[in-house]
Amino acid sequence: MIGVDWGTSSFRAYRLGPDGQVLDRASAHAGIMFVENGRFADMLRRTIQPWVNAGERHVLLSGMIGSRQGWVEAPYKPCPAGAADLASATIPVAYDGAEVRIVPGVTAEEAGVPEVMRGEETQIIGALAEFGEAGLACMPGSHSKWVSVEGGRIVSFSTYMTGEAFAAFSGHTILGRMMKADAPADPEALRRGLARSGDPGGLLRHLFGVRALGLFGKLSESGSASYLSGLLLGHEVRAALAAHPDRGPVVLIGDPKLCDLYAQAIAVCGGVSRLVNYEAAPAGLHRIGASVQWTSV
Amino acid sequence: MIGVDWGTSSFRAYRLGPDGQVLDRASAHAGIMFVENGRFADMLRRTIQPWVNAGERHVLLSGMIGSRQGWVEAPYKPCPAGAADLASATIPVAYDGAEVRIVPGVTAEEAGVPEVMRGEETQIIGALAEFGEAGLACMPGSHSKWVSVEGGRIVSFSTYMTGEAFAAFSGHTILGRMMKADAPADPEALRRGLARSGDPGGLLRHLFGVRALGLFGKLSESGSASYLSGLLLGHEVRAALAAHPDRGPVVLIGDPKLCDLYAQAIAVCGGVSRLVNYEAAPAGLHRIGASVQWTSV
Repeated sequence: MIGVDWGTSSFRAYRLGPDGQVLDRASAHAGIMFVENGRFADMLRRTIQPWVNAGERHVLLSGMIGSRQGWVEAPYKPCPAGAADLASATIPVAYDGAEVRIVPGVTAEEAGVPEVMRGEETQIIGALAEFGEAGLACMPGSHSKWVSVEGGRIVSFSTYMTGEAFAAFSGHTILGRMMKADAPADPEALRRGLARSGDPGGLLRHLFGVRALGLFGKLSESGSASYLSGLLLGHEVRAALAAHPDRGPVVLIGDPKLCDLYAQAIAVCGGVSRLVNYEAAPAGLHRIGASVQWTSV
Repeated sequence: MIGVDWGTSSFRAYRLGPDGQVLDRASAHAGIMFVENGRFADMLRRTIQPWVNAGERHVLLSGMIGSRQGWVEAPYKPCPAGAADLASATIPVAYDGAEVRIVPGVTAEEAGVPEVMRGEETQIIGALAEFGEAGLACMPGSHSKWVSVEGGRIVSFSTYMTGEAFAAFSGHTILGRMMKADAPADPEALRRGLARSGDPGGLLRHLFGVRALGLFGKLSESGSASYLSGLLLGHEVRAALAAHPDRGPVVLIGDPKLCDLYAQAIAVCGGVSRLVNYEAAPAGLHRIGASVQWTSV
């Protein structure tokens, strides 16, 4: 089969063998934000046609391609959601020469507030072996996700706007004026920010400390961004760990550099983590694809 | 005497009688950010000269005019700071025809992180009658201050970047896209945000709810800004109230509309507040001025 992890800015296609092994791969500057006039089928064909010509008939897409801004909207599947639940909720799209389906996103609700993911559910399914009977994943990103998995299904999750908050505070507040542009990461300043996040007072107060420490020469311009990053990461990680007191090691899934930053934050905040060192998306596409009732052979 | 509350963007001058009564007043588009080439003396003369001509000889300035970006830097006075402490730490500046001094800002430190204020200390001194032997003030603004007062002196305080955080999140994140520009305040959405701030999960998670609620049609575009405002205010107020469990009513000092918003937030978060319904800055300038050892008569 063919699996495609098709996000807002990225497009990664995989030709997958019967056991999920990646036989071939292709990426393109074809995230949905770059596709004009809804020409998703053309974009897909340009990438996967050689594999279709070679006999592949089943194509599964995951990610923002199933959002309102994507090809066809695949309605969110409520938790709990495992591979079979997702497979039976896939949505077909018209495509000449192969059967193409889109994996739905997943939704949850807590205290009357909904949660949504698109694409992460497929990575979780790809990494199911990491969780045993129950476990907790952290998926860093500009909107990072913490996902509870039980019995092979996503049972609940929460989103933290940490990455986007960092961009907003460093780019559009007085704190940015304390920062040297393009300074390299400062591990000691990161640790100080992580530690500070455990003090009383809350994030809005801790943020002002970036400015006050700078005014008094207690935080360098080159360290301010790392300190701010530590504050925000620390607040996220402490809240997420507190919400899952009986967790095992946190399973980190995503970009290795970001995962490394989160691993440090989790350690400083008293947790333990483990990195998934393989590509979870193609593994998830394969596993979900194996449960899909394809109408063609 | 003459008192001037001289901030980054505003300039308010008062001619004060012997009991602190405001005899005359003048304001100008003369905040320090609008004064070019350090021409502070000229700017001041343009406003107060009639009062100097009428015999006033003592001029006291408070606010950002004493910062590094102002006229002359008046070093921060560490807590505790009362009227006499501030008066003895005023800094003279050269001016023909009158004796001009600048009130210092105040600094505090907690857990190795400094706090700073400039201008607010003078308002607190002007409102001292509100605190009795001990009390807590809240001074809303883009960086709001919560100030503990004991025995007529500022003993500690903390700053929350709430106002600037609102501007950054509504103007420079995906949350702004959920918002109708210039929508009127939505009291019900504000209350929902204030209530949500009391749930577990922390601010970074609650923020994402603005987007998710909008996606599911559970929060209108016209209510999103008020909901975000409620989230941020609620996080500030809950943290500040928790830090002062034995407080009396919170004394609100500042812009009446902002104070009204904070009064609502404090009430929803289980506190009690009282509004200072007079101008605290000229009262504070008078009280500090009365303790200054002026060298002229």
